[in-house]
Amino acid sequence: MIDTLLTHDNIALAGDLANRIDANTSAITETTFLSNNLWIMVAAALVFVMHLGFSALEAGFVRRKNVVNILFKNAMIIAIGLLSYWLCGFGLMYPGEAFSGSFFGFAGFGLNPGETGQTSAYGDYTYYTDFIFQAMFAATCATIVSGAVAERIKLEAFLLFSTLFVAISYPITGMWKWGYGWLDALGFYDFAGSTLVHSVGGWGALAAVMLLGPRLGKYTSKGIKPIPGHSMPMAAIGVFLLWFGWYGFNGGSVLSADPAGVSLVFVTTSLAAAAGAVGAFLTSFTLFKSHDLSMVLNGILGGLVGITAGADQMSPNEAVIVGLVAGVIIPISVVAFDKAKLDDPVGATSVHLVCGIWGTLAVGLLGSKAGMDQFINQLIGIGAVGLFTFTFAFLLFFLLKKTIGIRVHDEEEDRGLDIIEHDMSAYNL
Amino acid sequence: MIDTLLTHDNIALAGDLANRIDANTSAITETTFLSNNLWIMVAAALVFVMHLGFSALEAGFVRRKNVVNILFKNAMIIAIGLLSYWLCGFGLMYPGEAFSGSFFGFAGFGLNPGETGQTSAYGDYTYYTDFIFQAMFAATCATIVSGAVAERIKLEAFLLFSTLFVAISYPITGMWKWGYGWLDALGFYDFAGSTLVHSVGGWGALAAVMLLGPRLGKYTSKGIKPIPGHSMPMAAIGVFLLWFGWYGFNGGSVLSADPAGVSLVFVTTSLAAAAGAVGAFLTSFTLFKSHDLSMVLNGILGGLVGITAGADQMSPNEAVIVGLVAGVIIPISVVAFDKAKLDDPVGATSVHLVCGIWGTLAVGLLGSKAGMDQFINQLIGIGAVGLFTFTFAFLLFFLLKKTIGIRVHDEEEDRGLDIIEHDMSAYNL
Amino acid sequence: MIDTLLTHDNIALAGDLANRIDANTSAITETTFLSNNLWIMVAAALVFVMHLGFSALEAGFVRRKNVVNILFKNAMIIAIGLLSYWLCGFGLMYPGEAFSGSFFGFAGFGLNPGETGQTSAYGDYTYYTDFIFQAMFAATCATIVSGAVAERIKLEAFLLFSTLFVAISYPITGMWKWGYGWLDALGFYDFAGSTLVHSVGGWGALAAVMLLGPRLGKYTSKGIKPIPGHSMPMAAIGVFLLWFGWYGFNGGSVLSADPAGVSLVFVTTSLAAAAGAVGAFLTSFTLFKSHDLSMVLNGILGGLVGITAGADQMSPNEAVIVGLVAGVIIPISVVAFDKAKLDDPVGATSVHLVCGIWGTLAVGLLGSKAGMDQFINQLIGIGAVGLFTFTFAFLLFFLLKKTIGIRVHDEEEDRGLDIIEHDMSAYNL
Repeated sequence: MIDTLLTHDNIALAGDLANRIDANTSAITETTFLSNNLWIMVAAALVFVMHLGFSALEAGFVRRKNVVNILFKNAMIIAIGLLSYWLCGFGLMYPGEAFSGSFFGFAGFGLNPGETGQTSAYGDYTYYTDFIFQAMFAATCATIVSGAVAERIKLEAFLLFSTLFVAISYPITGMWKWGYGWLDALGFYDFAGSTLVHSVGGWGALAAVMLLGPRLGKYTSKGIKPIPGHSMPMAAIGVFLLWFGWYGFNGGSVLSADPAGVSLVFVTTSLAAAAGAVGAFLTSFTLFKSHDLSMVLNGILGGLVGITAGADQMSPNEAVIVGLVAGVIIPISVVAFDKAKLDDPVGATSVHLVCGIWGTLAVGLLGSKAGMDQFINQLIGIGAVGLFTFTFAFLLFFLLKKTIGIRVHDEEEDRGLDIIEHDMSAYNL
Repeated sequence: MIDTLLTHDNIALAGDLANRIDANTSAITETTFLSNNLWIMVAAALVFVMHLGFSALEAGFVRRKNVVNILFKNAMIIAIGLLSYWLCGFGLMYPGEAFSGSFFGFAGFGLNPGETGQTSAYGDYTYYTDFIFQAMFAATCATIVSGAVAERIKLEAFLLFSTLFVAISYPITGMWKWGYGWLDALGFYDFAGSTLVHSVGGWGALAAVMLLGPRLGKYTSKGIKPIPGHSMPMAAIGVFLLWFGWYGFNGGSVLSADPAGVSLVFVTTSLAAAAGAVGAFLTSFTLFKSHDLSMVLNGILGGLVGITAGADQMSPNEAVIVGLVAGVIIPISVVAFDKAKLDDPVGATSVHLVCGIWGTLAVGLLGSKAGMDQFINQLIGIGAVGLFTFTFAFLLFFLLKKTIGIRVHDEEEDRGLDIIEHDMSAYNL
Repeated sequence: MIDTLLTHDNIALAGDLANRIDANTSAITETTFLSNNLWIMVAAALVFVMHLGFSALEAGFVRRKNVVNILFKNAMIIAIGLLSYWLCGFGLMYPGEAFSGSFFGFAGFGLNPGETGQTSAYGDYTYYTDFIFQAMFAATCATIVSGAVAERIKLEAFLLFSTLFVAISYPITGMWKWGYGWLDALGFYDFAGSTLVHSVGGWGALAAVMLLGPRLGKYTSKGIKPIPGHSMPMAAIGVFLLWFGWYGFNGGSVLSADPAGVSLVFVTTSLAAAAGAVGAFLTSFTLFKSHDLSMVLNGILGGLVGITAGADQMSPNEAVIVGLVAGVIIPISVVAFDKAKLDDPVGATSVHLVCGIWGTLAVGLLGSKAGMDQFINQLIGIGAVGLFTFTFAFLLFFLLKKTIGIRVHDEEEDRGLDIIEHDMSAYNL
């Protein structure tokens, strides 16, 4: 019967139709790939904006005499970050399947897209898109340190530290989770990097601040002296730009343009930032009876850092809670660090370390992954990444301290780094 | 014959091909949805940038002593705006089909994506995308008020006003058109909100300015005293950022990434902004023989507000006319408000109210909807929205004035809000 | 046999399936078009950000007394640029197929999308998308001039010059390559405009600087006097924004969202910018023993300008070389221009002209097009575009000099353009 009916003509006809269907199916795959890849590229550009945000925020929060210095550091950090991630960071962080579940691996120096790596699907985007999106993240952790050590660190020491921190420390702990290492195998969850990016920067900042000591005159026998930043508008612009860039940071971490996933992340990210502002406002008003702009600005950032670990796991309502708690944490943490005489001119440790820890723990407390097992996994991840990073940063900074020195002379600090290190003034007004 | 030829094998073959075609059709729908949704999310992020733009613009146009205050207000407004829209604004503005053609409706508190709301098509984007795009719009109207009342309003009064204005007033009139209410049924047209967003903010600003009174020393027996802003670069940066964000505001209001629709909107928006600059330049040069940067900057904004109601209905040539007229309006309107002793430090009423009215009327005069009937509908819409909003804002502000008070003491105004309300200085130069 | 088997029913069934396949194929083409078009629109918005970047950079690098003037110029340039490109620039630059291989052509005034131009494919995007993307480029070349002539040029002369430069000169040489003119036929390659945009601006700047002369007191008998800019933070913010916008400038120049093409361009652009920073840092440290922020900032821009001609032709490693060389060039070129007493307050000639030439030559030396023939074509293109542009700009400026005058009086220059031309002060601090 088949032989009779499925003659050559019928078979040819059906075969022709099947080929055309297959061609369509391929074309659909390609166009979906194109759109997903487009989003990750746009997200990479948005994460780049965060470096502008950090620059403006940190510049605003330091004194006028150190503004050129902080801008110089931030301009060099993004450059060094991209180049060192190109040299070896990417290879360390994504060593390939063979190293799944392990502590360390290396895919080689430079970029190796392979035969078809550039055009074919590496997930839902190209190899080069993957690199540039990840590279923009990498430099972030060094930028976080830059704010905390502002106004007193030696430029060369900082640049050396940043290079090695971004090139080696960040990608190794990043690999533990995102490169399919042992923390991933364990079940640790960190969606976009509350721990892997923000806490890592925060631990580096803490180590540096401990070894560097406070700015001259900050902690005196008469108490803690507030050292206000030189430009609140610049700090505010920086925070808005960071918020803007965070849509790429969290939104891009879906690793595709999946409508359900990315739009939920946009909502949770936005609501957490908003709730962070409100939480910090209410807390600082209750505690200090003040309308403190810097607290509100850091509250926004705290909310953003807090939601980052679970932005895809929280409902909008839960995101509000995560952000609100982060906002409450900010003023308390800022005061606590000051009491411990850990001088951090921009509040980077409160925002990135403390709220990074909070956000990572929140994944075990709220949202679709909440549970005791998850909470313990989160604790293990926080502890392991913190231990490695703090040790790495502390040893590296200690080594620099004992060799080239990490701190400028008192007279230099007093006159300001702009004149001493750069022979320039930030303003000629 | 059919029975003979369409044997099981043939039927099975055809059925298999048909299934594969259906699968392709579904996949195409999905990938188109993904791209449309992506654009609306990116547009939401661009509208967010407008809040940075407003912050910079308003900060630049106020005196140094009130800069922290305006930044504090703007940081809180976006937070309050997002949270109140999440709480009830979204539910008021989009109450659902049952309320089509009506004056009021409510879909309930919080976000209710429904069973498949998160993933399935809600138009050409997800429920969450819809929320975040609309939420970014909502806060805009309060920000517009913030500039007009700057330098003399009490912080608590303003925050209370903003919360209720964004949570209740804005979504109700918004529902009349965009939530398929009575103005939509009537045929009123407002593409992206010349009336529903900008005039609404403008009416709120007008009511507030009337009740608040001018800044000390603005209108004296010797005439009108110009009070220049503290930083023109900041104002200029703000305007450029607003222009940038407007590509999301207008471009996203196509509610899809439809190539014809969005690209026309990009062109009309750009040309209207450009023509607004030229119109304001020529007018202020003719009237005052000056090259007034603040007029050119507000001319750009006027052009943008003007094109917003009909950005999808105008040809490029018509967009130039709309923008040019808006630019001409700006210097005239600014002078007129000053003559009426309505003190608006940033020109928000001229930009958002007057040019918002002009742009809404222009839909009846130019473009594909032009005609007497449409013009009358536009008038009705302008009048109805204006009446409701002005009344709401006036009564609310009046109530605040009679209770907690809306204006700081003269000594506080004189010393500046930054020191009095925030115990901070914007700059330490 | 066919007659027997392919009965009406079978034919109808197969025909129905074929129709449904065709519908899918059309839908796939449409959705791919939508995504490609979306990227070019987003890229246009990013190129718009470059105008903000230029404004901030140039404002930061001039003295306080000329800040309003430079902002006024930049706000007007984008307006004039868009409008003149709408009037005739677009028609001159893309005259249509009939003018392929020629020196000059004109498609007519205004926008002429044709019957289906708005909706149907014009390449991978709509006619309107094409216009707005190209229009954003056009204004760039005038902005480049604006920085070089800052602090001493008459406003009217500059606005007249800009209008004609953008409306006539830029599109004619642009047509030679991108409008399928004679340089395209020859084989000259300039991916996104190292020559056609940046050098064109640079040649215009050079002609203007030569005719205008240096700022008062810059070159004295006692040597070259450094005239520091008034705000390094503003300059730094400008450079970051330019870098951000460059993702649209280069990324959009792929003219589709092709994943392989755009992601490679993102990587080469990023690495060249980073290498430019490092190259300028090392060179200025070696030559002047300084950590010069303005050199690093211009090094970033030099790297970006340098990669622009071959961003799609270079491997990541080659991009690092192109950027590094551009970074090395910057400090040397800045010194050389100063030795030649060509006073350029922002370094526009070094960044855009010299690095533009370097980047264009690099296409003949490195990357997939490298070779002696290509190198000669690059030389011809650089020479021809340079000769035309420099002659046009020089003659136009000369004419303006002999008629309305191009330079303000010495007293005006001394007091600053802000007070004289604008009756305003940039800051009231």
